[in-house]
Amino acid sequence: MSGTPGARRGRGRPPASERAEGPGARERILEAARSEFAERGYDKTSVRGIAKAAGVDAALVHHYFGTKDEVFAAAVEVSFEPALIIPAVLGAGPEGIGERLARYFIGVWENPATRAPLLAIIRSALTHEAAAKVLRGFVLRRLLERVAADLAVPDPKFRAELAASHMIGIAILRYVIQVEPLASADPEEIVAMVAPTLQRYLTEA
Amino acid sequence: MSGTPGARRGRGRPPASERAEGPGARERILEAARSEFAERGYDKTSVRGIAKAAGVDAALVHHYFGTKDEVFAAAVEVSFEPALIIPAVLGAGPEGIGERLARYFIGVWENPATRAPLLAIIRSALTHEAAAKVLRGFVLRRLLERVAADLAVPDPKFRAELAASHMIGIAILRYVIQVEPLASADPEEIVAMVAPTLQRYLTEA
Repeated sequence: MSGTPGARRGRGRPPASERAEGPGARERILEAARSEFAERGYDKTSVRGIAKAAGVDAALVHHYFGTKDEVFAAAVEVSFEPALIIPAVLGAGPEGIGERLARYFIGVWENPATRAPLLAIIRSALTHEAAAKVLRGFVLRRLLERVAADLAVPDPKFRAELAASHMIGIAILRYVIQVEPLASADPEEIVAMVAPTLQRYLTEA
Repeated sequence: MSGTPGARRGRGRPPASERAEGPGARERILEAARSEFAERGYDKTSVRGIAKAAGVDAALVHHYFGTKDEVFAAAVEVSFEPALIIPAVLGAGPEGIGERLARYFIGVWENPATRAPLLAIIRSALTHEAAAKVLRGFVLRRLLERVAADLAVPDPKFRAELAASHMIGIAILRYVIQVEPLASADPEEIVAMVAPTLQRYLTEA
């Protein structure tokens, strides 16, 4: 599990700087990492910069998370946390699953607070292999496997990835490239068109 | 039409450097621009660097294309040229249009020669607003409008954008993030799953 988000969490006795910073330091570091990666991009973000933004010593960031890649992985995990409830969305049964999932995805993207870190992650993954590797590991091993586990179709991971690809593509055209009329379309118009697609991928053999 | 690819093409009398470089200079510049943007990204590419790679004077690049943004727009246009035959794919009539389009898209992405510049453009557009603007203008004004003109559905541009979003999302997950099993799936498996989606978007009211 090396390289897994949180793998270094709590390893050994905390350094003096942690004891000085108090128990909220880990959360502050994660929050700072999310902002730094979102604002500066993968390349220009450093462990030192994250530490400074969090008001802690760089040694503490290393203690909790390890390398820059591992801090990135932890920040990805935090950003995708809302997506981890997807299995619950799926778990409500096959009927209407496409619509529930489409509405859920659009909701995450419509909310600027959840959109910004997701965009930052996609941007980083598209431009840096290290970031792509983290996203691949996370998306593949955790999110999509959990989604696929609930599906009663052949090739459930393939199906889950096709559904994810559509939602990612919509997010890119709507929120990043901002092509019209997609960029200004009512979210419910998008849900209405996309729901049958997701329904088919996730439930029809 | 200011800022449109090729708008400065052939404006006025060519400078002495062009006459010295011969008639192939414009094509060499475009080829060099494509490579430079693909390899270095939008940020690190300069008109001077493009000129050097093409073996011409920077003034000639300015003469033909204008600013860096305008060179980028021209390079985008060249890279999307294969996509301009899409109206022909669509023009063959509604029956089987989803399958033809899915197979055509996957073919463009499977070919490393056409994939590389497309990836470079998407990467640039995701990280630089100037590049996003160029892609938005091009995709919106030229490609999607031509596609939409052939569709007999309500909101044809919206439908064309939904279809495009799916193919872009697949390209990102398959070729950039490389999630499995999508990354290793047989192209025909993808076509078989995606064709009915495109068919519905482009032909069903």
